[in-house]
Amino acid sequence: MSAEQQLAITSQRMFGLGWMRGTSGNVSVRDGDDLLVTASGVDKAALDATHAVRTSMLGEALPGQPYRPSAEARVHAAVIAATGASAAVHVHALSAVVAASRWPTGVTLADVEQLKGIGRAAHGDRVTVPVVANSQDMAELSDRVLGALGAGVPGVIVAGHGLYAWGGDLDEAVARTESLDWLCEYALRIDALRP
Amino acid sequence: MSAEQQLAITSQRMFGLGWMRGTSGNVSVRDGDDLLVTASGVDKAALDATHAVRTSMLGEALPGQPYRPSAEARVHAAVIAATGASAAVHVHALSAVVAASRWPTGVTLADVEQLKGIGRAAHGDRVTVPVVANSQDMAELSDRVLGALGAGVPGVIVAGHGLYAWGGDLDEAVARTESLDWLCEYALRIDALRP
Amino acid sequence: MSAEQQLAITSQRMFGLGWMRGTSGNVSVRDGDDLLVTASGVDKAALDATHAVRTSMLGEALPGQPYRPSAEARVHAAVIAATGASAAVHVHALSAVVAASRWPTGVTLADVEQLKGIGRAAHGDRVTVPVVANSQDMAELSDRVLGALGAGVPGVIVAGHGLYAWGGDLDEAVARTESLDWLCEYALRIDALRP
Amino acid sequence: MSAEQQLAITSQRMFGLGWMRGTSGNVSVRDGDDLLVTASGVDKAALDATHAVRTSMLGEALPGQPYRPSAEARVHAAVIAATGASAAVHVHALSAVVAASRWPTGVTLADVEQLKGIGRAAHGDRVTVPVVANSQDMAELSDRVLGALGAGVPGVIVAGHGLYAWGGDLDEAVARTESLDWLCEYALRIDALRP
Repeated sequence: MSAEQQLAITSQRMFGLGWMRGTSGNVSVRDGDDLLVTASGVDKAALDATHAVRTSMLGEALPGQPYRPSAEARVHAAVIAATGASAAVHVHALSAVVAASRWPTGVTLADVEQLKGIGRAAHGDRVTVPVVANSQDMAELSDRVLGALGAGVPGVIVAGHGLYAWGGDLDEAVARTESLDWLCEYALRIDALRP
Repeated sequence: MSAEQQLAITSQRMFGLGWMRGTSGNVSVRDGDDLLVTASGVDKAALDATHAVRTSMLGEALPGQPYRPSAEARVHAAVIAATGASAAVHVHALSAVVAASRWPTGVTLADVEQLKGIGRAAHGDRVTVPVVANSQDMAELSDRVLGALGAGVPGVIVAGHGLYAWGGDLDEAVARTESLDWLCEYALRIDALRP
Repeated sequence: MSAEQQLAITSQRMFGLGWMRGTSGNVSVRDGDDLLVTASGVDKAALDATHAVRTSMLGEALPGQPYRPSAEARVHAAVIAATGASAAVHVHALSAVVAASRWPTGVTLADVEQLKGIGRAAHGDRVTVPVVANSQDMAELSDRVLGALGAGVPGVIVAGHGLYAWGGDLDEAVARTESLDWLCEYALRIDALRP
Repeated sequence: MSAEQQLAITSQRMFGLGWMRGTSGNVSVRDGDDLLVTASGVDKAALDATHAVRTSMLGEALPGQPYRPSAEARVHAAVIAATGASAAVHVHALSAVVAASRWPTGVTLADVEQLKGIGRAAHGDRVTVPVVANSQDMAELSDRVLGALGAGVPGVIVAGHGLYAWGGDLDEAVARTESLDWLCEYALRIDALRP
């Protein structure tokens, strides 16, 4: 499958999970020396391979592209450069945004098997999914995301906004996105239990 | 794709999201000098292009149509005439109706990225999604909806009923519907957090 | 479409909505002088037209049927005989069962548009969706369901069990089922609002 | 349908229900003298028949298998040997994990029809779905699961982890998994009701 088709399939999957409503969210994957990023403002349920925009490794569109890349391409590029990942996913998952409101300094988890889905241990490992403040300045947002890498989690929640996750390939980035959503929903449901 | 087919696809999508249960909800789109409106009482999971009823720009069925348009066609027509929109979506989204019960004078939001999905700013913008009272008199309901346009939101919640949203085309109306649902659910979940 | 195919499509739809998990739920529709009922113990996601069991109007299997009808066929038959309906749907919808636990004497609703989906008025109409006690004796359960018809609602909740709804055809029975689920979920969410 | 195809279809179904996010979960089914187990680390939405790994009845891969079986194959094998079941399903269903947090000594249920979906009586039967502690040592986890068989429930919740269920064939194991999820969600929703 081409990298362009992978972007399309991933977008449709994230839409189906409820995390890319109203054209929100974006996906990126390395392709040789370039980065492919989903086009800006496209309905993710209908996004196809033609909406994969070829950009530099800084997230800037190469000449002649028919669509503009997502404004957040720069954040994807920064994460991929800093971590050595090859793919990143950004979703507006309610679980993550609500969890960031509940725990503004980070969502702390321990003793839960799904932590293995983000490369951490199920036991004896206190994990804090980092939360950073939102920004409309993509350089500032990128700096905040990179500033959270020390948490040792392949993802970060942007407060009032959504979730970024990344991996060695798009499959891994998707799996980590799904695990982070599961973990955030789990934390919120445990927190809401009586009494 | 024909405008009729767009109505059908949109209806199926809104059904799939859980917002058009039990034949509820309706969709409209301009087609030349006419307005196409989904037929009354049709299961939205099964609605096809033949169920697109051609009406005047007042929402009144043109002669010879095999189906009656939704009773709410008049509200669609009023919104489209007043706003210059080309398409409108009406759904029975639980999130919106529950939010209207929680905040009967409007659902106020700020500092959340998804506000950009309804044409507002993510920061420094205090947005109130308006709530109006329900009515079985379509002229009265239309007046109430138009009376709420001053909120600067491309949608309005009808208390105890559902949500209207509109846009420059059907894709935009759908995207705004999805963003409004996301925002209502977000507001409710934040509100329900401990303590 | 044959009545057998309608049963299969309805079963798959109700499974998709989460209301027929683990082989639970059943569907019936009149076909001439007979009643067709879904087979007992079949996975509703995989139920096809061959699983439509032909029974008498008392819900007893006609000779030579390859499958046994659902044990609840007798309840379907009783409801259809008493109301003049032509189709009935029984689902294990969590919303209805939880609502029956919250309001053991019936789920009362008023001033909500979706009431029109069960043939009642959106305003000025106080509607109580009846709740009856569960029983493993199908004659007793039938009597309880029939005893609740006075509520003027085309459906009844069986406490600790599920929901029955019926209509003039299978489409109407499905639409009413969906409306009743919406209404129960709505009632529960409004009830759970702060403070 | 081959046993390999059954594993694939079951995995896709459990993914669709939200219980196998991020490569989590696994499925097994007897095939003659062998046990087929889903491969480790595979996206369950994309798992196909080639990912069915043939193992001994102890859950150890037979020579020449292209994939490694799930690490939890040993637990599947132990359950199947001890109970005489022919298939087992392990899912990360949030409902079960949250319920185990709420009721660490077991989830007790009575007077609910869906109990029949796990082979128990709807009335007059007090059922406790057992909860055991998680472990990364598969021998220890197997012992804990086997130690819970006395509860007379064809499933067990592993705290902070997920749910196992089993049956005479894969269909039965799936149906019981779905019933256990329904029952856990039901218990949690009833528990959360006011006051």
